[in-house]
Amino acid sequence: MKESITPRATDFSEWYQDVIDAADLAEHGPVRGTMVIKPYGYALWEATQKYLDTKFKETGVQNAYFPMLIPESFLKREEHHVEGFSPEVAVVTYAGGKELEEPLVVRPTSETIMYDVFSRWIRSHRDLPLLINQWANVVRWEMRPRLFMRTTEFLWQEGHTAHATEQEADERARQMLEVYQRFAEDVMAIPVIPGQKSESEKFAGALHTYTIVAIMQDGKALQFATSHNLGQNFAKAFDVKFTDESNNSAYVWQTSWGLSTRTIGGLIMVHSDDKGLVLPPRIAPIQIVIIPIWRDEETKEKVLKKTEELRDELSVFARVHIDARDGRPGEKHYHWEKKGVPIRIELGPRDVDNNTMVLVRRDNGEKILTEGKDFGKVEEALGDIQNNLYAKALARNEQKIKKVDTWDEFKQAIEDGFAVLAHWSKDAGVEQKIKEETKATVRCIPFNQEMESGKCVYSGEPSEGRVLFARAY
Amino acid sequence: MKESITPRATDFSEWYQDVIDAADLAEHGPVRGTMVIKPYGYALWEATQKYLDTKFKETGVQNAYFPMLIPESFLKREEHHVEGFSPEVAVVTYAGGKELEEPLVVRPTSETIMYDVFSRWIRSHRDLPLLINQWANVVRWEMRPRLFMRTTEFLWQEGHTAHATEQEADERARQMLEVYQRFAEDVMAIPVIPGQKSESEKFAGALHTYTIVAIMQDGKALQFATSHNLGQNFAKAFDVKFTDESNNSAYVWQTSWGLSTRTIGGLIMVHSDDKGLVLPPRIAPIQIVIIPIWRDEETKEKVLKKTEELRDELSVFARVHIDARDGRPGEKHYHWEKKGVPIRIELGPRDVDNNTMVLVRRDNGEKILTEGKDFGKVEEALGDIQNNLYAKALARNEQKIKKVDTWDEFKQAIEDGFAVLAHWSKDAGVEQKIKEETKATVRCIPFNQEMESGKCVYSGEPSEGRVLFARAY
Repeated sequence: MKESITPRATDFSEWYQDVIDAADLAEHGPVRGTMVIKPYGYALWEATQKYLDTKFKETGVQNAYFPMLIPESFLKREEHHVEGFSPEVAVVTYAGGKELEEPLVVRPTSETIMYDVFSRWIRSHRDLPLLINQWANVVRWEMRPRLFMRTTEFLWQEGHTAHATEQEADERARQMLEVYQRFAEDVMAIPVIPGQKSESEKFAGALHTYTIVAIMQDGKALQFATSHNLGQNFAKAFDVKFTDESNNSAYVWQTSWGLSTRTIGGLIMVHSDDKGLVLPPRIAPIQIVIIPIWRDEETKEKVLKKTEELRDELSVFARVHIDARDGRPGEKHYHWEKKGVPIRIELGPRDVDNNTMVLVRRDNGEKILTEGKDFGKVEEALGDIQNNLYAKALARNEQKIKKVDTWDEFKQAIEDGFAVLAHWSKDAGVEQKIKEETKATVRCIPFNQEMESGKCVYSGEPSEGRVLFARAY
Repeated sequence: MKESITPRATDFSEWYQDVIDAADLAEHGPVRGTMVIKPYGYALWEATQKYLDTKFKETGVQNAYFPMLIPESFLKREEHHVEGFSPEVAVVTYAGGKELEEPLVVRPTSETIMYDVFSRWIRSHRDLPLLINQWANVVRWEMRPRLFMRTTEFLWQEGHTAHATEQEADERARQMLEVYQRFAEDVMAIPVIPGQKSESEKFAGALHTYTIVAIMQDGKALQFATSHNLGQNFAKAFDVKFTDESNNSAYVWQTSWGLSTRTIGGLIMVHSDDKGLVLPPRIAPIQIVIIPIWRDEETKEKVLKKTEELRDELSVFARVHIDARDGRPGEKHYHWEKKGVPIRIELGPRDVDNNTMVLVRRDNGEKILTEGKDFGKVEEALGDIQNNLYAKALARNEQKIKKVDTWDEFKQAIEDGFAVLAHWSKDAGVEQKIKEETKATVRCIPFNQEMESGKCVYSGEPSEGRVLFARAY
């Protein structure tokens, strides 16, 4: 591991990799593009799973598990889907000591295998809505891998639902996007922009794709999660039909929605600083670390006793870790700073005698002196850190997203590392040209904006509102 | 789905498949040998995960995630390992639109990829013990698939640890076997026989394999979980070394241990009856189902109100589900019986008027009348069902495991559907011959038995104790 973390201003990509190394979150696997998620990084995914799984179940979703190996022919049944995914799939051609008659695709996503099964599960309107989620690994071959952000294999959840009406399906797709938004904003403290994807950026096979977009510190956008209104495209391809109350047969309306380990990449890129990882308390595996400091055996015993008391008291409302390893306090201080633990408490013999302690906030370095058993201050500090990180990221979004009205402004802003809100006539050819000239793409057509007529920043054609353009991870 | 469940006495295999269908637990996937785990079946796996994950963490184990795709060359580094797994692996030869330079194996287990990584993680004795677990899917090509019991892809956890001494590794392997035994006996109500595997049956690459064996209702044995003392075999193959306190370099001592979705197959086969699934309360996704019964709108309102009150009161200590669907009570009764819910409460207008209710136990059909808010009886019934199922299975084990002393007795007992405890001299050639002649194999050399000298039931050679032989799933 390198001794120090490359500053963001020097090289943002290198900084990102250094933060991951220094916090011991993950590393590259032996096969190009794969990732080993180390225990501290995996704990972030476990916290993500715990929150989302509860929220999904509150809306009536049930978990299930579908096979990872999909007959190649399934992928081909929906024409847009096969076009979108074929170049990325890994294919098993050989198994059990023999060449297979039909190659099997390692799932890049599970629409095809699930809906083949759904076509047998769904018979009548009484079987609807069908609300299924799966926690799984998926494989999409990556040419430009980056830990968490783009890996050949990643972990995610994929929800798949079937409904009797178009409206109900669309409402479900938007409802799940909102669950993702609450997770991003309330748990990861990442303000996001919800909106719809352009036709060229939508999911291969979807009618509409909804997304929440997060802006990184370098002004690039990250697709945090997506939710698709699939219409009846897959229902027709896989013959997923139901009989309604009047005994008529009809295709179901479907949705799918997913959030993956790349959100951890976003978490790292949004909050961390040149000293290393910074974690919002609600997602932090350890919220408070206590570092006992002693001079000799006598003070060691006294301090350790107090440290354990304190841990038990703070554990009522927080996840607390004691670092009582041998080693210099300064080293431990840097160790936990790099791991982004929200609050550090260094407890020495004098603190024990005076019945005081000093909290140090990871987000802004502020020191808070507390006396006696004033644990309210500790709890308050955790809340403040959560809010502060969100507010900081929100303020940065406002600064990093520029409204531009001319093509020159557009190009300059993108070049300078901004995301932009600009008019665009929804012409796919123009979108493609903008991409070629600036590497910026339509990240979303935001839901929440004043409708404002204007002229496409590139073509001058009439436009009904601004869309978010940015370079993207 | 078939109308009725084949009785066990008619065809045990068909009965097993019928119970799974009737309870809506799982079905075959489109690729031979694969399985779709349906929500009710997956809920059993979620309960398994929740219990084990907590217990593992209590012993200091941390979760992580390693890539599923393993370079083929890794598998070949430990000679016994490659011999054991080569015939079963699925191989990716094509990915991202190109043929791969080196084929990639879909993990059948993760020793090789993890220990390649461990060799870089472990430097000094301060890095030990390393205690890692992973929840994952694995693929082993199955020629004779059976839902849950043998599927080409299955879900499991695999723990992998590294230690400074042989003794510590062996203790860890035995400790984890005990966690599995507690889960089998305390949660799934399945009495198991802990022991060691014979040399020919041990894990490919292990020094010793420990196992817990469960006996099914047909007298066949199921390997419920295994824990391996790997010695230094993999450490040498993957160069996993540490420097001890005297600065000497040494290979680590390792263990691995796993439990999979096949335990759900065991759960089904041990407790279920000719009416369908029977679930012990501690693993049951729904412990109590309330079926409201009404005559008209007026009684419907009254009964539903009381049902909801009851649900709220029982939910304090139990997982409760109300089945208020339209439909005949008799149909609902059979529906939940087939799903093995431990307690059924049918609540009608007269029960509401009299402030009484009748519990019906799934395990033995017993009816328990309760009055007022005597919920102690409900809680007691749940405990009784758990204990009764365990006691019944234990009594059956005693009846199904025969001590035999002659080769004729041995053959007859196996043919009659028993497991046997017999003397064997630990000669692998004899073990092979017994297998060929009876299809019975050494399931384990039990830990808990009186050492008793005798003569091998087949060869007459001296033996130090009895081992468990049975046909196996």
